[in-house]
Amino acid sequence: MTQTLSFYYDYSSPYGYLASERIEAIAARHGRTVRWCPILLGAVFRITGSVPLTEQPMKGDYALHDFKRSAREHGLDYSHPETFPIATVAAARVSVWAREHDDPAIVDQTGTLVHALFRALYVDNRAINDAAVVSDVASRVGLERAAIDAALADGAVKDQLRQDIDAAVALGVFGSPTIDVDGELFWGSDRLDQIDRWLERGGW
Amino acid sequence: MTQTLSFYYDYSSPYGYLASERIEAIAARHGRTVRWCPILLGAVFRITGSVPLTEQPMKGDYALHDFKRSAREHGLDYSHPETFPIATVAAARVSVWAREHDDPAIVDQTGTLVHALFRALYVDNRAINDAAVVSDVASRVGLERAAIDAALADGAVKDQLRQDIDAAVALGVFGSPTIDVDGELFWGSDRLDQIDRWLERGGW
Repeated sequence: MTQTLSFYYDYSSPYGYLASERIEAIAARHGRTVRWCPILLGAVFRITGSVPLTEQPMKGDYALHDFKRSAREHGLDYSHPETFPIATVAAARVSVWAREHDDPAIVDQTGTLVHALFRALYVDNRAINDAAVVSDVASRVGLERAAIDAALADGAVKDQLRQDIDAAVALGVFGSPTIDVDGELFWGSDRLDQIDRWLERGGW
Repeated sequence: MTQTLSFYYDYSSPYGYLASERIEAIAARHGRTVRWCPILLGAVFRITGSVPLTEQPMKGDYALHDFKRSAREHGLDYSHPETFPIATVAAARVSVWAREHDDPAIVDQTGTLVHALFRALYVDNRAINDAAVVSDVASRVGLERAAIDAALADGAVKDQLRQDIDAAVALGVFGSPTIDVDGELFWGSDRLDQIDRWLERGGW
């Protein structure tokens, strides 16, 4: 079985978006695939007492500048969303639904869906807090709109996401993105090169 | 005149220590020298509302693990100080005094002094919050103890540090380390490779 890298993220995290565009290539270089693990930072911030990055004095201004600068370095599009941060529960739920689906064809679409949702927010400025927008984005990558709408109303999907978040917190995940490499957590999109070296060297 | 990279840091910042051990090599690769700019994060945190990293739930545990892991990657010694965080005003003042001295021989010792103070705290677990310890560390790198003790009591040195901190805040410095590359601020020891690439490419 292919080893995975678990990628924890919130759709409302610009650094989560930036890292999502690069993590698969790093995983692939080391014969791995990415397990997409959306979480809701609001639930985590209630534990850590953190506030959203862009709402912090000074740090917020730096972050807004750095999102674009870090995107440019890697040739990624980045447009800061007009409404930010936003509620991402619908986007997270549909992503968990795809990842956990019985149909392997839908499971295989998970990464494509994750990228489409991130790009909808950070490239096309679409309000993915709106379930109808999530449903539209998902349908454009080939998922059935009726199935998406059912998933968004499905109690089992809600429960799965809630359990995923509890498990992430229990593991020590407190920010987005956090990458779990065989039990070693790395926090931040600026740690991707370090993860690459960690995998190359087999740790240190 | 040689161009500098301004390196803003608090001695009570482990990531400041880790970056201090690597920044000169990066600067030198691009024909630059480092301007050492100690600040006091306590003053900055009153503006940003931040709390010391190791005191934050979850993030603190991650940080304690990551300090050592990041040190190991670069072959640096790291031992987390028994008392932490500590007051670093004496260490900051003596560093500013050396950097601003009329005697170029003392100015030239600034980097050596900075490294000695950082290593006293993070390698030898010495309580550099104590002015007597700061004085001892400075004397071991060849600075005169009487001159250090006078500097620590000198109102002009206090004022210089206070002005430096105000100027740093005005520039947008909110954390340690922050490196100013020709007006572009980069925050975090995990941005050193990005700074290296920025200098190599002349920005992007």
